[in-house]
Amino acid sequence: MPERITLYTAKICPYAQRAELALEEAKAKYTKYQIDLQNKPEWYAPKVNPASKVPAIAYGGPAVQPDQPSSESVKLAESLVLVEFVADLFPDSPLLPADPVKRAQARFFIEVVSSKLVSSWNNALRTGTPEAVQAFLGGVEAVQSLLPAQGYAVGEFSIADISVAPFLARAYVALENDIGAYEQGEGAKILEALQQPRFARFQTYWAELQARPSFQATFDKEYVTEAFKKRFSSLRVKQ
Amino acid sequence: MPERITLYTAKICPYAQRAELALEEAKAKYTKYQIDLQNKPEWYAPKVNPASKVPAIAYGGPAVQPDQPSSESVKLAESLVLVEFVADLFPDSPLLPADPVKRAQARFFIEVVSSKLVSSWNNALRTGTPEAVQAFLGGVEAVQSLLPAQGYAVGEFSIADISVAPFLARAYVALENDIGAYEQGEGAKILEALQQPRFARFQTYWAELQARPSFQATFDKEYVTEAFKKRFSSLRVKQ
Ligand SMILES: N[C@@H](CCC(=O)N[C@@H](CS)C(=O)NCC(=O)O)C(=O)O
Ligand SMILES: N[C@@H](CCC(=O)N[C@@H](CS)C(=O)NCC(=O)O)C(=O)O
Repeated sequence: MPERITLYTAKICPYAQRAELALEEAKAKYTKYQIDLQNKPEWYAPKVNPASKVPAIAYGGPAVQPDQPSSESVKLAESLVLVEFVADLFPDSPLLPADPVKRAQARFFIEVVSSKLVSSWNNALRTGTPEAVQAFLGGVEAVQSLLPAQGYAVGEFSIADISVAPFLARAYVALENDIGAYEQGEGAKILEALQQPRFARFQTYWAELQARPSFQATFDKEYVTEAFKKRFSSLRVKQ
Repeated sequence: MPERITLYTAKICPYAQRAELALEEAKAKYTKYQIDLQNKPEWYAPKVNPASKVPAIAYGGPAVQPDQPSSESVKLAESLVLVEFVADLFPDSPLLPADPVKRAQARFFIEVVSSKLVSSWNNALRTGTPEAVQAFLGGVEAVQSLLPAQGYAVGEFSIADISVAPFLARAYVALENDIGAYEQGEGAKILEALQQPRFARFQTYWAELQARPSFQATFDKEYVTEAFKKRFSSLRVKQ
């Protein structure tokens, strides 16, 4: 039986949504505590995560208020570590396929997401250069090239899908609202590019990711849209 | 029962040594095939790893010569993916602790190795700037700060130790031979710094890593030294 789980998270954060997705898929009982990243509580770094980032999990220890973390719980951080942790705690969850080969393919998919999609999206958003935008589309293509003819990243749903969905969700919010350092109007052009036939398989995949109940339970599009407007609308001006 | 395993590797490569260490620790039966990275066989990218890197594993399929890979085997790449794959294939091996918390701590350690030590070492070697050298020492300190009072990264030996040992081994070869883009004589100074009391815990850890039979079976120091001299001695001149 897993022990007590407290998740420190933030709706805006794609890494944090990974941890939420894993806990939802595992049907874990857990306490969710929102960290305001613009105004972090002073106890957070010393008592939960010295790197001062979300997501983090406090595991085990006595029943306490999340804002009074016990020194007796174990503190864990890093989204991909947490996703694997939840998979280990709940071996009967759909998080990891039983077949070692499929597990390896799921982890390889995650590696491609990290090295080709997450980084290029962050660049496209923050620098907005044509090269960065092209690299982002290249990242989407790299991810697409790993997809089987149908279904999720390795057929059945897995941590591979969890690794990518939160980033795609936030990329769409930014692009639909033309938020980013790229030129005005570029958001719509990137969205158009993603509608081209060469991204057809990606689009069916992305539709399936969004339809997943765990995704809907963990993505507050309205909130993220407002937060992105506040936080990132200055990116273009700053150029 | 695991199926047939062929490992494509190269003695010089720290990523490849990770996969070798995992297979040795698991006491796996496998075929090892050396890829000459300076002169890669033309079948390697199309038939084994499209990224054209080592390590890679061909898993399953019929008995074939490693240089005639079967299309029926599954091809897997990325050192950390392969290490987890071997752990999944051999659940009774010492690669992953049974306790989910320790497993998470092992994976967190690996994340720190990747983000703080591997990258800073590559920079120190290839750019040699004082900042890069300091960042490398900072990376060693970050790794050290995660070590328990004694024993391996999470107490018992695990994939955490496998992730770091090959990089330390090659850093020592470079430093001991003053190979790198840093200034002449700097190698000895960095080694001296690593002998300071502030690195005492790191030193006992590094000694234990080197004493591990799997390490000795997979690290050919003489070969790596000669290969480093050939491959990297031009780094300083090129500055
Ligand atoms: N590598 C980390 C990254 C986590 C991260 O960068 N989180 C951001 C929010 S999306 C954060 O908490 N940043 C600290 C801050 O905003 O002060 C992970 O995978 O969990
Ligand atoms: N991220 C990869 C990196 C592997 C890698 O970079 N391997 C190098 C040798 S150390 C390689 O094969 N490079 C291709 C080449 O030298 O042509 C992993 O973890 O396996």
